[in-house]
Amino acid sequence: MNYTMVFFILRKFIGMTAILMLLPLLVSVIYGEANFWAFLVPSLTLLLLSFATRKMKPKNTTIYAKEGYLIVALAWLIVSLIGALPYYLSNVGLSYLHSLFEAVSGFTTTGSSVLANVETMPYSLLFWRSFTNWIGGMGVLVFLLAILPQTNSRSVHVMRAEMTGHQVGKLVSKVKNTVIILYGIYILMTLVLIGLLLLGRMPLFDSIVTAFATAGTGGFAIKNLSIAFYRSPYIETIIGIFMILFGINFNLYFLAFTAHIKNALKSEELWWYLGIILVSTVAIACNIYSTYQNAVQSLRYGFFQVSSIITTTGFTTADYNLWPNFSKTILVLLMFVGGMAGSTAGGLKVSRLVILVKSMLREVRTLISPRSVKVIKLDGQGLNDRVVSDVNIYFFTLMVLLAFSVLLLSLDNLDLVTAFTAAVTSINNVGPGLNGVGPFKSLDGLSNLSLLVLIFDMLVGRLEIFPIIMLFSPSIWKKK
Amino acid sequence: MNYTMVFFILRKFIGMTAILMLLPLLVSVIYGEANFWAFLVPSLTLLLLSFATRKMKPKNTTIYAKEGYLIVALAWLIVSLIGALPYYLSNVGLSYLHSLFEAVSGFTTTGSSVLANVETMPYSLLFWRSFTNWIGGMGVLVFLLAILPQTNSRSVHVMRAEMTGHQVGKLVSKVKNTVIILYGIYILMTLVLIGLLLLGRMPLFDSIVTAFATAGTGGFAIKNLSIAFYRSPYIETIIGIFMILFGINFNLYFLAFTAHIKNALKSEELWWYLGIILVSTVAIACNIYSTYQNAVQSLRYGFFQVSSIITTTGFTTADYNLWPNFSKTILVLLMFVGGMAGSTAGGLKVSRLVILVKSMLREVRTLISPRSVKVIKLDGQGLNDRVVSDVNIYFFTLMVLLAFSVLLLSLDNLDLVTAFTAAVTSINNVGPGLNGVGPFKSLDGLSNLSLLVLIFDMLVGRLEIFPIIMLFSPSIWKKK
Repeated sequence: MNYTMVFFILRKFIGMTAILMLLPLLVSVIYGEANFWAFLVPSLTLLLLSFATRKMKPKNTTIYAKEGYLIVALAWLIVSLIGALPYYLSNVGLSYLHSLFEAVSGFTTTGSSVLANVETMPYSLLFWRSFTNWIGGMGVLVFLLAILPQTNSRSVHVMRAEMTGHQVGKLVSKVKNTVIILYGIYILMTLVLIGLLLLGRMPLFDSIVTAFATAGTGGFAIKNLSIAFYRSPYIETIIGIFMILFGINFNLYFLAFTAHIKNALKSEELWWYLGIILVSTVAIACNIYSTYQNAVQSLRYGFFQVSSIITTTGFTTADYNLWPNFSKTILVLLMFVGGMAGSTAGGLKVSRLVILVKSMLREVRTLISPRSVKVIKLDGQGLNDRVVSDVNIYFFTLMVLLAFSVLLLSLDNLDLVTAFTAAVTSINNVGPGLNGVGPFKSLDGLSNLSLLVLIFDMLVGRLEIFPIIMLFSPSIWKKK
Repeated sequence: MNYTMVFFILRKFIGMTAILMLLPLLVSVIYGEANFWAFLVPSLTLLLLSFATRKMKPKNTTIYAKEGYLIVALAWLIVSLIGALPYYLSNVGLSYLHSLFEAVSGFTTTGSSVLANVETMPYSLLFWRSFTNWIGGMGVLVFLLAILPQTNSRSVHVMRAEMTGHQVGKLVSKVKNTVIILYGIYILMTLVLIGLLLLGRMPLFDSIVTAFATAGTGGFAIKNLSIAFYRSPYIETIIGIFMILFGINFNLYFLAFTAHIKNALKSEELWWYLGIILVSTVAIACNIYSTYQNAVQSLRYGFFQVSSIITTTGFTTADYNLWPNFSKTILVLLMFVGGMAGSTAGGLKVSRLVILVKSMLREVRTLISPRSVKVIKLDGQGLNDRVVSDVNIYFFTLMVLLAFSVLLLSLDNLDLVTAFTAAVTSINNVGPGLNGVGPFKSLDGLSNLSLLVLIFDMLVGRLEIFPIIMLFSPSIWKKK
């Protein structure tokens, strides 16, 4: 383990976080809020620390996979520990653990909240909250890559651990250029969304922070009623569509821009993704027709919720906890699906699901005709058996973590639906669950143990499990 | 597909079922019950049919894997369809679908019941019910093998599809001898259990049928309060221990008898199995201490329920639905674990779980040190990667079936805990679940759709998923 190199990269990263904190500080000044020092103090301290250690440079700059995973895991932990400070220092009645929960929920783009009444919070804090969704969305790692001086092939180790999805798209040969292009697309889409929300007469501040939370598929809302507050079918539709757009693999946008839209439309994963959204929306709309007695309303609420849940955003326009159980079950299943690989969404990812389903079908075929050895294809290309096996193990590991989480949460004597959906929604970075953690509910009543379990789940889910698990493996901490 | 051979084997099998039905007929005569013709009519009809078609012999006796799976799947379906007749014809107020449910629940050793008040049933029907648990326990296939004239290597195809577990133990070279030895152990253990229950002053009839349901890890009880009815710590302890014994791989008994007990104790799976039971019992006993305020009581109820659930028997001595959620969560997780491979228990099986856990740990190690390729070992022997991959796919398939089952059950608007545990308990052949399908609850209130879903789940679980799934694959029905 090359500790000096790990420290070297993390140092740059901490400096970057300190700089990003200046933006909510500006908001604080604009609105004349008393909590500006809650941003200023941590930001300045970290910048000074960063400056003081600027001469510490590693002799050996080589890093391998395990350094990569360690950097990513520690980076998320450290950014969360720092990101919690503004909440804690703003004196809004949050303990440090509650503040940490809010920060982790933000950076992991989960969007669960321990704030009992979000509407009483200072603007600067609301801005910071949604901004963490936005930062987290594209992944600390792409972000990390941008400030990494070593844009060589080894960076891919770090990228593999971070990029949402099982494969790193080779957009362009140089990683740095890729990052710039991805950020370009991300920023452009966010700006378009802000513009469209303004057109729907959403206030400027609301438009900006809602766009942040949508782009990161985070789902932090600044109203207790989430998007339902605006009572605007237009706003709901725009956000519903944009959540889906941010759940699409960003490589496809790149392809559509640089080559031709046809190349992007060839993606098998895209059609599965859109297909699942369509089928789920229709199924839920039919099922909740009994509740709303109106086809348009049923479709409107159904579409928004499906879009919000599958992309793991977590915005709500209706209390789906009151819907019939069939609709609730669909939503819980969608929480596992998640968006496309290479998007800002969490969850298992559609591509993994497709591979799992195909490996299941291959198993049936092989049992019927044992001599037929078939390769699993995705987008016409054969997949290595190792990849298929990795995806299967990933799925099992997810289930094991879920089981242990529910077990620990049930020590709080939460009812099983609450415990189960709290774990599911955290590990898949969705946000709201059912019953005690349903939409419009705050998690401020949970015990410290439960909050710690959910913090672990959010981090483990966002980092695609293994980097966090590795922190518990003694072999990663060995010097040589 | 060699249809004539499939029919030839199924015919023998139907004849055997008809003969087995004569036993409850005898019980009916002994107790002078009016429903003796409910056994006589189907039994005689089938025997006559079997006799009439005795000259139909296939020219080509070759069968391959797909014929094997088809035979197993159809055999279970047909035996259930036949086994439902006594319930239906006994005029105890059951529809044919309800009768089928009871029969499938019996043969799959699940033990869920649609009888609202089991204590009002005729003795002959109660005997048949528990007897189906006993028959199902050792698997229709071992049974099928015993009447299969072709004791050649091809039979192993049929055996693989049926034997509970991922590998067929090669006890002795000749399959027929194996079957006789396995049945010998099974019958001997059942007789010992009957003797021990009689010593505990359980009535003779009760002892016999309870031993049947225990041996098959089925769990059909003849009292509404299940084993709690007897209020005897002795009986509970005996049954608790015997459930665990029947959840042990029968190959180990064979080894202990023929070689030395040391060889049997080398089994890694055995220690995992016993370890899980120990840890779960202690955890639950500590957790329910608050309920019973007595360490001995807590251990007594905890041990019995853990033993009953992990072996997928489903007997109950306490309404665990009233226990704290931590204990309930442990029990739900144990439902997935199941007994050892090669036992009469259902569930995922401990060996599969061990393989899954080891493949997960290998993944972490490989990510840390990509060049270390390690083989997963069980009992000191390296496992083929194909086996590891199969187990992983098996797990995913189980989860997919579970998800669809819950989805369909939720159409009944059952609460999520009821729908989820009903599906879990059926697919793992356990019996009782939580809430609406909790201990001491009858499933007679479920809709026909829900009963069909659970019937499917019980069959799919008992046959280790793939034989039943194959019935839906068009390629298995092709003539050539």
